[in-house]
Amino acid sequence: MKLYNENMPAPNPRRVRMFAAEKGISLPLVRVELAKREHKSAEHLARNALGQVPTLELDDGSTISESVSICRYLEALYPAPPLFGRTPKEIGLVDMWIRRVELQLGVPLGAYWINCHPYTEPYAKAMGITRFGDYGEASRLRAIDRLEWLDGQLESEFLAGDFSAADLIALSLVDFAAFIGIAIPERATRLRAWHERVSKRPSASA
Amino acid sequence: MKLYNENMPAPNPRRVRMFAAEKGISLPLVRVELAKREHKSAEHLARNALGQVPTLELDDGSTISESVSICRYLEALYPAPPLFGRTPKEIGLVDMWIRRVELQLGVPLGAYWINCHPYTEPYAKAMGITRFGDYGEASRLRAIDRLEWLDGQLESEFLAGDFSAADLIALSLVDFAAFIGIAIPERATRLRAWHERVSKRPSASA
Repeated sequence: MKLYNENMPAPNPRRVRMFAAEKGISLPLVRVELAKREHKSAEHLARNALGQVPTLELDDGSTISESVSICRYLEALYPAPPLFGRTPKEIGLVDMWIRRVELQLGVPLGAYWINCHPYTEPYAKAMGITRFGDYGEASRLRAIDRLEWLDGQLESEFLAGDFSAADLIALSLVDFAAFIGIAIPERATRLRAWHERVSKRPSASA
Repeated sequence: MKLYNENMPAPNPRRVRMFAAEKGISLPLVRVELAKREHKSAEHLARNALGQVPTLELDDGSTISESVSICRYLEALYPAPPLFGRTPKEIGLVDMWIRRVELQLGVPLGAYWINCHPYTEPYAKAMGITRFGDYGEASRLRAIDRLEWLDGQLESEFLAGDFSAADLIALSLVDFAAFIGIAIPERATRLRAWHERVSKRPSASA
């Protein structure tokens, strides 16, 4: 088993590294340099038709892509400690928070990143991709609004009650947001405390 | 247990109804009329802070939202027949296809629907929501492109090999796409055959 991976600040591969660290799984990493467009090489497209990282290559040569799906595969192989919930209700709520964080926060972050951020501009230009600047800017404001919404939703130490994969996924997005210039608002004090709490875990540096 | 629900063509509640039908679970339904904005009422916001359907109310009065998360809750309660995979690899691949269908197809469909579709225009106007028409139109083209991509990825009868929750989620989106004017392209013959295959299941009319 090996993980086709990219370093920080890429949020998706980091989720899998953090998840593996929480489980005590040692995952061999193969770097795919996004800045060199290695993820769009024929070699990597054969592993993942979407040309994305992370992608996990199994010992039988087949692959599983999508960060959360790789984590679910690892959870099935190594159930302890459980990070996707234990009871039916926990299983439902952990998944709910993963989806909320990704759809509410991840989607507008991605839209701002692709349409407005200076870092992605040269690629868009080189590949003839239209950027929708007004939509991107609205997405930036939406992401800030969603950070505040998340703050209001935090009722315990972690998103779904006990610590779970939802916290790792949220951390990857909140840290990526900061990297692209969208910090947690000052008044979102619960979210800031949550961020400090999750960032202190040894897995956060994975 | 009861499901706060809306009828066709709303794709998300339909997933849960189809999933329950595949499991043979009888779910009491409570209609939340989107056209009357009942999903944004104080009563429903207390069940789901995002004001969305479906939302499942458990017997203890607590709620689980997000279509796929409700399905995962039901899968944990009623494991047979398994619809999220059996082996670790199947579990990973079913989740991968759910995510791909939702992120690749569902996100642009939603962006077109919100920004361009005549049906959503009066709501946007009434609520002062800016519509990004050029982005919406690009999202429509993106959705068509993704239907063709999906066609090229279909290697067996169903998305993840055996029939799974991924097929139900994809069906809900492909049918919603048709409802908003985005049909499966003629040349996407494998996807068309898949659509016929999944639509024939009794659960499709749930």
